[in-house]
Amino acid sequence: MPEILLGEYLFLRLKQLGIETVFGVPGDFELALLDLIEPLGLSWVGAPNELVGAYAADGYARLNGVGALVTTFGPGELSALCGLGGSYCESIPVLHIVGYPTTPAQKSGKTLHHTLGDGKFYHYQRISSELSCATTVLDDPITAAAEIDRVLNAMVFHSKPGYIGISEDIAYAKVSAEYIDTKLARSLPHSAPESEASAVALIINQLESAKSPILIVDGGAARASWAEHVDPIIQALKIPFLVTGLGKGIADETSPCYQGCYAGAGSWPRSAIGLVKEADCILWLGNYPSDFNTGIFTENLDHCTIIDLQRFFVKIGENKYDARITHVLPKLISAFSSHRPLAQLPVEPFPEVNRHLTVPVSNKIEQDWLWSRLSSYLRPGDLVITETGTAQVGITAVRFPSGCHGWTQSVYGSIGYAAGAAAGAAIAAKEAGKYNRLVLVTGEGSLQLTVQAFSILTRHGIIPVVFVLNNYGYTIERYFRGWNAKYNDIPMWDYTALFKAFAPDVEPQVKGYKVTTAEELETLLSDEAFCDSIVPQCVDMIMDPEDAPEAMRTVFGAKNAM
Amino acid sequence: MPEILLGEYLFLRLKQLGIETVFGVPGDFELALLDLIEPLGLSWVGAPNELVGAYAADGYARLNGVGALVTTFGPGELSALCGLGGSYCESIPVLHIVGYPTTPAQKSGKTLHHTLGDGKFYHYQRISSELSCATTVLDDPITAAAEIDRVLNAMVFHSKPGYIGISEDIAYAKVSAEYIDTKLARSLPHSAPESEASAVALIINQLESAKSPILIVDGGAARASWAEHVDPIIQALKIPFLVTGLGKGIADETSPCYQGCYAGAGSWPRSAIGLVKEADCILWLGNYPSDFNTGIFTENLDHCTIIDLQRFFVKIGENKYDARITHVLPKLISAFSSHRPLAQLPVEPFPEVNRHLTVPVSNKIEQDWLWSRLSSYLRPGDLVITETGTAQVGITAVRFPSGCHGWTQSVYGSIGYAAGAAAGAAIAAKEAGKYNRLVLVTGEGSLQLTVQAFSILTRHGIIPVVFVLNNYGYTIERYFRGWNAKYNDIPMWDYTALFKAFAPDVEPQVKGYKVTTAEELETLLSDEAFCDSIVPQCVDMIMDPEDAPEAMRTVFGAKNAM
Repeated sequence: MPEILLGEYLFLRLKQLGIETVFGVPGDFELALLDLIEPLGLSWVGAPNELVGAYAADGYARLNGVGALVTTFGPGELSALCGLGGSYCESIPVLHIVGYPTTPAQKSGKTLHHTLGDGKFYHYQRISSELSCATTVLDDPITAAAEIDRVLNAMVFHSKPGYIGISEDIAYAKVSAEYIDTKLARSLPHSAPESEASAVALIINQLESAKSPILIVDGGAARASWAEHVDPIIQALKIPFLVTGLGKGIADETSPCYQGCYAGAGSWPRSAIGLVKEADCILWLGNYPSDFNTGIFTENLDHCTIIDLQRFFVKIGENKYDARITHVLPKLISAFSSHRPLAQLPVEPFPEVNRHLTVPVSNKIEQDWLWSRLSSYLRPGDLVITETGTAQVGITAVRFPSGCHGWTQSVYGSIGYAAGAAAGAAIAAKEAGKYNRLVLVTGEGSLQLTVQAFSILTRHGIIPVVFVLNNYGYTIERYFRGWNAKYNDIPMWDYTALFKAFAPDVEPQVKGYKVTTAEELETLLSDEAFCDSIVPQCVDMIMDPEDAPEAMRTVFGAKNAM
Repeated sequence: MPEILLGEYLFLRLKQLGIETVFGVPGDFELALLDLIEPLGLSWVGAPNELVGAYAADGYARLNGVGALVTTFGPGELSALCGLGGSYCESIPVLHIVGYPTTPAQKSGKTLHHTLGDGKFYHYQRISSELSCATTVLDDPITAAAEIDRVLNAMVFHSKPGYIGISEDIAYAKVSAEYIDTKLARSLPHSAPESEASAVALIINQLESAKSPILIVDGGAARASWAEHVDPIIQALKIPFLVTGLGKGIADETSPCYQGCYAGAGSWPRSAIGLVKEADCILWLGNYPSDFNTGIFTENLDHCTIIDLQRFFVKIGENKYDARITHVLPKLISAFSSHRPLAQLPVEPFPEVNRHLTVPVSNKIEQDWLWSRLSSYLRPGDLVITETGTAQVGITAVRFPSGCHGWTQSVYGSIGYAAGAAAGAAIAAKEAGKYNRLVLVTGEGSLQLTVQAFSILTRHGIIPVVFVLNNYGYTIERYFRGWNAKYNDIPMWDYTALFKAFAPDVEPQVKGYKVTTAEELETLLSDEAFCDSIVPQCVDMIMDPEDAPEAMRTVFGAKNAM
């Protein structure tokens, strides 16, 4: 009977799940495992550190469906945890493969490097079990293949990270090659058919009987798994729709039904608040009512029926049904495509696009001007990754062109995420052959955490354009507290020089721009050579530390005076 | 009765423990807490990311005795964990203070940013409990002061990290100011007096009856707590002594008793192996027999009596005694200071110092030449922080001048540690007023993980000199496996440009040097302006990817051919 190595089995399973690139940082406990990757036709992308690698795997998974990260036991895996916490929080299936010391070494009780010095090898798995839907440390070749499948199945089912510890001896143990023929689930199965059918019928009924139904595209319920249904449901329903900060980036915002971004008091445009207030029924895709996603809990929704589509249930008003968003949406699309139009609010032309297009009188790169200006900079086929903080709020006021996609890590809100995620997204985008430019919008405070991600960004094909909001510190934190506090200042770095110094050998050479006035930025954004550039570019934008996007001023305005 | 805020109480306790600087990265859940730091006369040093902050707090604690790090709940604290894992492993007392959401917010069950989205707030404390000797999340102002003391006392007693979660509402709750008058222990108390006395008597007896006793200065048993006794015990015993990789950097290596670094087959010079082989009794200070600290378990010690001094016990041969290294050492010093000399091996002049001082014929910066050359570059008053990997092995062949101190994270072996630790050490050194130059010796593979630590290094007083072993990848990993594997290659960065780009506003401007030949390096190291520089300097040394220090070639040589 033909046999394969368990390490090969693991990577072949990843290929079956659609993974083409594995991220990570090499460490001696995993080197033998890494030797198996490329011969199987997978790519290996070494990250400058594990946190960047974890963010990259998350970014890759958001586009590709699933991602994988390899780190070494102990320091390597611990350094990745913040990335995996974000993946857990935002339902991104990333497999964390950890290279363990050999099983004899573990049993020897000797003090190995990377341990805590106490002869115990269980600490790190315990730690990761808080951030994973399933974990295993393989210690028996007889059961290892089944253990791998258990973790992978859980990961795909829950759309959460999984953890597999694998040592060199296990990775090179042999199993029957036939094991690999058992199919893994690549998507969420249906729930009970009668329950799903009755949920769908009730939703149709609710929408038909509503006078002013609206649709909200949010980002929960494992967004990537139902993103393909978003434009079809919009087209089928023909009712006004809003996005949330977390949901932004999968719907076609050039649709005449698009009405902006809803975030309670932080909505943009303000008319979105009225639209929600007047709705009597909201079909909510993947509602994820976190603080940052709701204008700090300033939503007001008591007046209407909410149809809440989640990964494992549908909730209509107060009643919960065993039905799943990924299966309910196609049924709704099919039902409404051949249906008489719903009673609906008249769809008004979108009110406030590009409202600040003349350069500000101050000639500063003012926040509100910037975000409006980016609406016309963006193009179909752009992939836009936006950092948490100021940029995350600002981007909600940008209307994306058709076929321009993106996301921001709104719920977990880990600063530094976007640069790493953009690196992973660039690689997934290249594999998918779908996007032209990769636009990373970040703040300099966030960028300082993971600046070395620049090194990946410039080396793997997709051409990045990085906009750095350089406003002398953590501006969003100033809005929380410490308006003039020293702890909210950060050191001034030369970002364009950094961008180049991380890629001195990349040809053609990366370009850096430092812009201090709105006119300079306007000139750059109007320059075709800049817009069509085929070399990586970094734009360091010097901005006022006290300025913030309109929605941020509105939500945090009261704190501003502190 | 006068009252103080609980947050003030916490920081006043840290002051009592000798902390002057607190490290961290601000996040909204901790901002209110940060407002209390500087009014109490403590300094705040913001790190570019939490991992660098954690390494800096560890480096600070190794010099200062205790360190503290503040991060925010969730992403912030997770990003610091690898640093705290190393502190745990190598017995460095670092307090991890985590800014929690307010207790009402925690009880509300709402989905806050930085949570895992499941409404549960216990995950992160559970995670840190694997890496701490004590944890608490303060939720009751009545018991909070006692909880703080419990964690601090445990931290000082065990010399391990502690974890305190504190929310804004708890930080601003009031307690009696009198609480602060209760003394905290700042060092380890004595054990049972009779047991300690009998252990001391037995040690004296063992050493007196030995024919060829030697001393080994290792790095376990919370090294910093007994470092002050090292030179006195050497002077009192007048027997040959060796250091280990972990123990190097606290003993005066210009002592005529110094005989090199013992690491089994990886010892330097080779004569150290013979010295151990001929010894019939070894007084071993803080034995920590980890793989990296023992030449991968190539020690051979069955022939002699080992007196193993540990933090909580003394072991003589197979018998264990309730006695503590910090209290046993002063008694031994006192006993032997007024004692007839011990029977001993003749102390030979140290055999192989500066043996390669002429520039290599190849004119490459060869490893063996480099380490010998650094012996004469170093000066009294230097603080030398060495990265794990190649540098850690190489440094064992450098003989430190008198009053030149340093360390390397030999047991935990987390690449990227040294740059962050050097930043913290620089600040502790400045406070102590004890060191002139801070010498960081690192590899480019390690530096990529935490390169932004440069930003702290250049801004806080002590002048760093950074030597980067730039050898096109993870050379120590090549010695493990994957001699030509792509995963052991890393992208080429421009380190001298990076060093400058992290400090464009630092005056006088930092200097960078890229050296590709031994002659160029010799010229630089012979240049008084370079050696006496008062500006930060970075030396990017281009080295052969297949070259390694002698000890590494010896220990890993067999694997080399793989």
